[in-house]
Amino acid sequence: MKQLKTRILSDGVAVGTEAVKVDSFLNHQIDVAFMNEIGAELRRRFADIPRDGIDKILTIEASGISMACATATAFDAQNPPPVVFAKKGLPRTMTDEVWFTEIMSFTKMKMTAVRIAKKFLQPGDRVLIIDDFLAHGQAAAGLVNLVEQAGAELLGVGIVIEKAFQQGGTLLRSQSIRVESLAVIDTIKDGTITFQ
Amino acid sequence: MKQLKTRILSDGVAVGTEAVKVDSFLNHQIDVAFMNEIGAELRRRFADIPRDGIDKILTIEASGISMACATATAFDAQNPPPVVFAKKGLPRTMTDEVWFTEIMSFTKMKMTAVRIAKKFLQPGDRVLIIDDFLAHGQAAAGLVNLVEQAGAELLGVGIVIEKAFQQGGTLLRSQSIRVESLAVIDTIKDGTITFQ
Repeated sequence: MKQLKTRILSDGVAVGTEAVKVDSFLNHQIDVAFMNEIGAELRRRFADIPRDGIDKILTIEASGISMACATATAFDAQNPPPVVFAKKGLPRTMTDEVWFTEIMSFTKMKMTAVRIAKKFLQPGDRVLIIDDFLAHGQAAAGLVNLVEQAGAELLGVGIVIEKAFQQGGTLLRSQSIRVESLAVIDTIKDGTITFQ
Repeated sequence: MKQLKTRILSDGVAVGTEAVKVDSFLNHQIDVAFMNEIGAELRRRFADIPRDGIDKILTIEASGISMACATATAFDAQNPPPVVFAKKGLPRTMTDEVWFTEIMSFTKMKMTAVRIAKKFLQPGDRVLIIDDFLAHGQAAAGLVNLVEQAGAELLGVGIVIEKAFQQGGTLLRSQSIRVESLAVIDTIKDGTITFQ
């Protein structure tokens, strides 16, 4: 997505050789009109999936929520697929049965519990995973794990920014998972971001 | 908002006398079309504020994000105000200067650090706060505190579900803060939810 790459170059901030901050438009402050365009582009990347071929869009709190909702709206504004977001941390009272996994956050350098109420991810559900970043692939792999636990069907993974120099994309694609990324970063070096 | 009350009665689950679970459409699974209507109604409640009278919509991760984005789109789909969501927890590296406060979560029974990068909330910004619930008012009061720290101007607080039997609404209105709630719950008793 050309407009996204342009925006990353103009407003993104390279941090060392591994990270890019896009908090001015994607994951702290949200440019809502641009986010709606990102949703439309993610939907286009999965244009072969008709509205009646998808049951749920799955993401993880918090940054994935806005783009997941925008993608759902782009599928069908009148009848969008529901968005389910996996929750981090453990609830005070585990009143519902949940699918549960743990993911390693390299940003925060800790393991995080992740869960989805079983009633919102069921056997046979056809699920598209949407998230902001694909880096080491921990969050995506965790969501894929939850889909597998549920006996749901994974349609693919839609990502806004993939960092190709980390192994997340390779990890997912090696399992024959379809991954569509709107911008793929090859390297971050001396403050310069290079796309594939 | 009649449709919201109907939905709470049909899909909400009363928990004891203090809580109602709306995780099937609002804060775990999201009914995106309904969320867009909630955004449109929140915008109508602040219809006296023209698009050029608002600079930012402020919310807190994670549940507030979808309704804040929907409200922003309802202000002007082509040129929505940016949404800024306050982040919970402390970052690994505090590279940006932040406005910082702590809020007590009665759901989780713990204090949570909350922060916004100073560059995204500046003196003079005209800010509308949007959130899913108003209960004890801790989250809203925390956001109001951040707005005050920044020297920004608070236009009001838009809430999807207010629980009138907890003191959040009273707390805010006693400070002459304009609060608009789409559904106000009076009591939760024996599994029955009663609206004001």
